[in-house]
Amino acid sequence: MKLNRSTDMALRIAMLTAASPGRTTVDELAVQLALPRNHVAKVVQRLQRLGVLVTIRGRAGGVVFAEEATALTVGAMVRAFEGDDEVVDCDRPACPLRPACRLRGELRRAQDAFLGVLDQVRLGDLVAGSAGPVLLTLGGRPL
Amino acid sequence: MKLNRSTDMALRIAMLTAASPGRTTVDELAVQLALPRNHVAKVVQRLQRLGVLVTIRGRAGGVVFAEEATALTVGAMVRAFEGDDEVVDCDRPACPLRPACRLRGELRRAQDAFLGVLDQVRLGDLVAGSAGPVLLTLGGRPL
Repeated sequence: MKLNRSTDMALRIAMLTAASPGRTTVDELAVQLALPRNHVAKVVQRLQRLGVLVTIRGRAGGVVFAEEATALTVGAMVRAFEGDDEVVDCDRPACPLRPACRLRGELRRAQDAFLGVLDQVRLGDLVAGSAGPVLLTLGGRPL
Repeated sequence: MKLNRSTDMALRIAMLTAASPGRTTVDELAVQLALPRNHVAKVVQRLQRLGVLVTIRGRAGGVVFAEEATALTVGAMVRAFEGDDEVVDCDRPACPLRPACRLRGELRRAQDAFLGVLDQVRLGDLVAGSAGPVLLTLGGRPL
């Protein structure tokens, strides 16, 4: 069972930018997180649309973690990036067992439990206390 | 978030064979479930090793759902097929944030909650009452 790669990247980017007091750029994030620059750029765009990152224009431009996003939960982030997909594809291609399948409902309940745990965790919690400053010392180059 | 295709197939095969009073074959399962025969064959082998399916030899040979497997849980099946993998790959490639990451623990807790729900569901529950007989009427050819 795996989260989409973009969800994973979004969580890493959110965590790192939440820990950082200043602005950062796509290039810096790609180095810090050791991730492909073009993937980082796409995920940063989605995070901007979601209001997790705010654009700073000008020569010293880049993105900064939005203060309000501290209260956003990991569950909300995962829902936003994963969409409404179920953990198995019953419809593409169509599974002949669907009309009498009890498994689908149980898998949905399990998925709800998974997200329920993450609904209790705010992005701010991930960088509270000592975690935030330590995060900034990691990776290829400090933010 | 998706289960591996083989896990999904294993659950479908378990559900269908659990509903069936008689023996079946890989060919029949592939038709019934509208799944590729070679994938079905591999998953059936794993289900035999796990003791979910029992081999019947001879001209009218095939496989049959093992009576004891009725008590096996969906959670145990998912653990057996998915292994110990986490929902994100922190190590391949290595994520620089690992030393100060609080997300990993939360994702593990969420995964435990997911599996915890499925640990409450036995394979026998999926085919109890009317579900089993209805399952057998579905798909390309009745078992």
